[in-house]
This record gives sequence, C-alpha cells and structure tokens, in this order.
Amino acid sequence: MSLTLAERVRAGDVRAMARAISLIEDEAASAAGLVRDLFPHTGHTCLVGVTGPPGAGKSTLVDRLTAATRESGETVGVICVDPTSPFTGGAILGDRLRMQAHAHDQQVFIRSMATRGHMGGLARATSDAALVLDAAGKSLVMIETVGVGQDEVDIVRTADISIVVLVPGTGDDVQALKAGIMEIADIFVVNKCDRDGADRAVTSIESNLALQAYGAGEWRPPIVKTEATTGRGVAELWATIQQFRAHSEQVSAGEPQPVASGFSRTNQARRLKARNEFRLRDLLTHRFMELVEHELLGAGEFDALVARIAAREVDPHTAASDILSRALRPKP
Amino acid sequence: MSLTLAERVRAGDVRAMARAISLIEDEAASAAGLVRDLFPHTGHTCLVGVTGPPGAGKSTLVDRLTAATRESGETVGVICVDPTSPFTGGAILGDRLRMQAHAHDQQVFIRSMATRGHMGGLARATSDAALVLDAAGKSLVMIETVGVGQDEVDIVRTADISIVVLVPGTGDDVQALKAGIMEIADIFVVNKCDRDGADRAVTSIESNLALQAYGAGEWRPPIVKTEATTGRGVAELWATIQQFRAHSEQVSAGEPQPVASGFSRTNQARRLKARNEFRLRDLLTHRFMELVEHELLGAGEFDALVARIAAREVDPHTAASDILSRALRPKP
Repeated sequence: MSLTLAERVRAGDVRAMARAISLIEDEAASAAGLVRDLFPHTGHTCLVGVTGPPGAGKSTLVDRLTAATRESGETVGVICVDPTSPFTGGAILGDRLRMQAHAHDQQVFIRSMATRGHMGGLARATSDAALVLDAAGKSLVMIETVGVGQDEVDIVRTADISIVVLVPGTGDDVQALKAGIMEIADIFVVNKCDRDGADRAVTSIESNLALQAYGAGEWRPPIVKTEATTGRGVAELWATIQQFRAHSEQVSAGEPQPVASGFSRTNQARRLKARNEFRLRDLLTHRFMELVEHELLGAGEFDALVARIAAREVDPHTAASDILSRALRPKP
Repeated sequence: MSLTLAERVRAGDVRAMARAISLIEDEAASAAGLVRDLFPHTGHTCLVGVTGPPGAGKSTLVDRLTAATRESGETVGVICVDPTSPFTGGAILGDRLRMQAHAHDQQVFIRSMATRGHMGGLARATSDAALVLDAAGKSLVMIETVGVGQDEVDIVRTADISIVVLVPGTGDDVQALKAGIMEIADIFVVNKCDRDGADRAVTSIESNLALQAYGAGEWRPPIVKTEATTGRGVAELWATIQQFRAHSEQVSAGEPQPVASGFSRTNQARRLKARNEFRLRDLLTHRFMELVEHELLGAGEFDALVARIAAREVDPHTAASDILSRALRPKP
C-alpha cells in the first residue's frame, strides 16, 4: 500500500516535503486537504522569523545559525521568502549557492518561496509551508524575509521568535526602527559589526528600548553584535535564542496565566493568538473572494464591474455592497 | 442652508478636507457615504507615488517637487504614509517641520497618514484620501511611502506615475531593485547624487532595464539624478514627470487601443484596471470580515474559534469552511 503525501511528509521524506510546499506555493486545490491532514501533527516546531533591510546580511547569518543549530542536534528547516515582481509573477530567486553548504545534510531542508500576485498570498503560503516542515519533524524552522514592509512584518510577527537584523552606518539602524518593526523584535542583531558605527547602532536601539515599558520579568529584547561572514557572535546569538525559547516554552500550551515571578506569559500568549487569528482571517477572505469571482459572479462580471468603477459609473463602496447582498444569507 | 462635508470638500475647504481624511483614517461609519458622494467628482487628479528605501531623501525630494509643481500652476496635495507600530497602534509621525515651508500656500495640502492594524488598511485609507484631494480639485497628488514592502508596492502600483528613489553607495541600489519594485517604476531617481557611487547606481539600474523587453514606443523608465537638499536635478525630474503625464493622458479614459505609433497604451490601461480592481477586492474582503465578526458570529465566538485552532482542535481550513457555509447563501 503506497503512502499518502501527508504520510510521506510526516516520515520526513525530503521529496514529499518539496512537493507539498510546491502545491502550497501554486495554490493547488489539494493543498488545503494536505494542510488539514498535517495540522493535528503540528505545533512542535520553534518558528524563528529573521527580517531586516536588504543588504543586512540575513542570508549569511541564517546559514551560520543553521550550522550552529545543527551542532546542537536540532533538525532545521529554512524558508527564504523571495519577493516577486508584482506584474510578471516571475520569482527572482535567492542565491542557490547557499544551499550547497548543507546539501549533504539530510536534516537541513532549505526552500525559497516567491510571492503571488494577491495581497497576503506570501504570508499565507509561508504559514502553510512552515506547517509542512513542522509536521515533518523539524524542531526549528527559520523564515528569512527581505525588507521591512507590511508583508514581512505580518510574516515575522507570527513567528515564535522574531529576530531583526540591522547594519551600522547607513542610517538604516534608526530608519528601520521607525518602520514599525521595533516592537516585533525579540532579539536585535547588529550584523557587520566590524563596520564603523556599530556602537552607534547599538546605542540607537538601546535608546529606543529605553522608551518602552517592560514589566518586571518581561522579556527585554537583547542586542547581539555579529559578523556573519566570519561567524563572530553567532554562538552568542544562538545562546540568546535558546534563552528566549526557554522563556517561550513555559507558555507553549494553555491559556495565559499570571505568574508571581519570572517571565511574563502575556506576550507569548498574545502572539500565539495573533498567529492563528491572522491565518483564519486570511483564509476566510481569500476563499470568500474565490467564491465571489468564480461562483457567484458570471464569467467576466467582476471585470465588467471594475470597468464601471473606472468609468465612475459606480463607486467601489456601492459595488461592494451589491456583491455582499448577493453573496450573503439575508439577516434573519 | 449649511453645506455638507462633501460639498465643502469639493469647494476646496481645507478644514473639510482634513476632517474628511480623519474620518477615513479612523474608519468612521460615515466615511463610506462621504467617498460615495465624492466619487462621481473624481478622476481629474494625477496621482504620483514616490517610494524607495528609508533614508533615500524622499521627503526632501517631495518638498522640492511641490515647489516646482506650484510654479507650474498646479494645485498640490501630499499624503505622507507613516508606518505605525503593529502592536500599539501609535503613529510615529513624520517631521512636521516640512509642512511649514508651504504653510502659507492655500493650494498645497499636506497630510500624514498612519497605518491601522489590519492588513491593507493603509492602502485602503490612502486610496480614499487621494479621492478626497481629487474631489477637492487638486490637480496633482503625491503619495510618499516609506520602505519597499508589499504595502508600499500596493500603494504605489496603483498611482498614475510611480517614482522609485534610490541612493548610491549602500548597496541599496541593487538590493532595492530585487525587492520587486523594478517593474513598478515609471521614473527612477538617484538622489544624493553628489555621493560616491552615483554613477554606479545609474549603471546598475541601466543594466536591469536592459534585461526588460520594451516594445516600440513603449515607455522606458528614465533615470534622473537629483540632489534634493540643493534642488539640483529637480527641474529635470519635473520635466520628466510632465513627459510621462502627456503619455498617460492619451489613455486617461477609454479602453486600451493598439496604436500604430507613439506610446503603448497597454500599461496605462492595465494600471487603471489594477487600481480599481484592488480597491473593490479590498473593500469586499474588509467588509465581509466585519460582517462575519460583528453580525454573523456572537460575541467572543471568533476568539473562541481562534483558541480552538491554537489548541489544534480544528484546522484553519475547516474553520474557514464552517464560517463560509454559515455566511453565504446556499448554492442554487
């Protein structure tokens, strides 16, 4: 009797994992059923989001971290989120060379994913791909994103650990903090710390942290200086990640509980909630639109409506109301 | 008889415009009706999106452009998109100082907008705010965004003209191109062109453009070097914008038509369609979710479902299916 794809994924079959993620990336009809089958077997992975401005050296850092985590006996999955041109849909894939370093290590699975045209498609696909690696038994999954836009923030904020990588000297240190990622960081990394301005970057993060209110026992994001190209600071970063995990694991299951001392559970519980809420919300809206366009409306009807809006014959709010009243059950 | 808010906006009343945008930003119940009233009177503005990595000098450039456009007799609106912390909801507002330069010019309206927690909220609000300035008779509206993430791309790709601002020397020139903004740019600006590496940045953009296929008569994004702090190159940039507008206005209304010579109309028509499609799609999903959470489901029911997903009792796909079958009319 041959195994199903879900069963092969759960057995850690590398080709099955690759196939499963391709189905998810292509939004294949079978992807939802696959995720449904895998879902009860997930929830055991620590999901690490790594973000920061382009050129911060995230790829090299993730490579170094992969080596460090493997030495600790973890099994590792890496998802590299590659932005795609919004018009052509053609992915600009990351440097494939990086995969060669771990090519002979069966316990490391590295995969690039590209965004689809639709808003949120990338976050949705990344989330499902992480579930595949989770069900396949990877104890640690790193998601590396490029840039600090809303999509990246959406991906990284739903991880178990968010690492924000900055570089000294370009003004990006302070600017990146402005871009709304200050409060999603559990750990700050100042990479390329051999460069001028590394201490200034640290000071700049410190002074931003000083503005935040941290409760007693609450996790205050530490700042780790690294030089990914030489490996300097990577061991310290790995130790810091472990420290944060120990903190998180206290709340990995169950409801938030006030604790008399030690770490605050509030943030972790809030994050677990945010991740699942984001997924549900995103799936609902995505599937609603598919139903509207492919079942409720006739062929070409959606496009015709868009053309009427362009011609100012109907405003978008009224058009939306009309579709909603056709799609939804009448109020009782 | 007192005028309605929409009437006051159409008369160009600055306080009414500010009030209208605040209603939109706050997602007030009256905002949809306001946009509905204004919509038939819109479509006359040229919408200019300005994006690029943090620290590229976009604000200074937009200020300089504002002065240049005013000298040409345009009336100008500027919307500065400020990212917000996703957790606290508090806006980090841009430098208010910039507004003072044009404070005594009634024909310049400058407004900062912050993002809301929900995905896409910023693009939705920015779009509606642009309609307000359009209805108020501004002939040119500039939308300045920070960063090159999906949200920014979504905002800028729906503008009539997209300007991508890069700076030499940080490696951002090439990296930014990777981030999916290469093909949304109608005009590239290399700002801070007094810096080392300005020519290298231009060459790097050129070699990327060389990879694209441009049809005969199709717009090929020019590269303009500027030094916004001194005003150098701004006149050339303004002239380039005018050139692109002349091109666009040929297709401002009507269906795409093959033209024997001159500019291709395809891209502009596609863009007009994309803008209106994006708006309709976004409004539909946003309002669908509001109905699900506040009318279909009882108080606390959505949260309870999220908690069940977190506990792995139900997978998100099944949860979404259940809600959809409750919300939607049965298939005939």
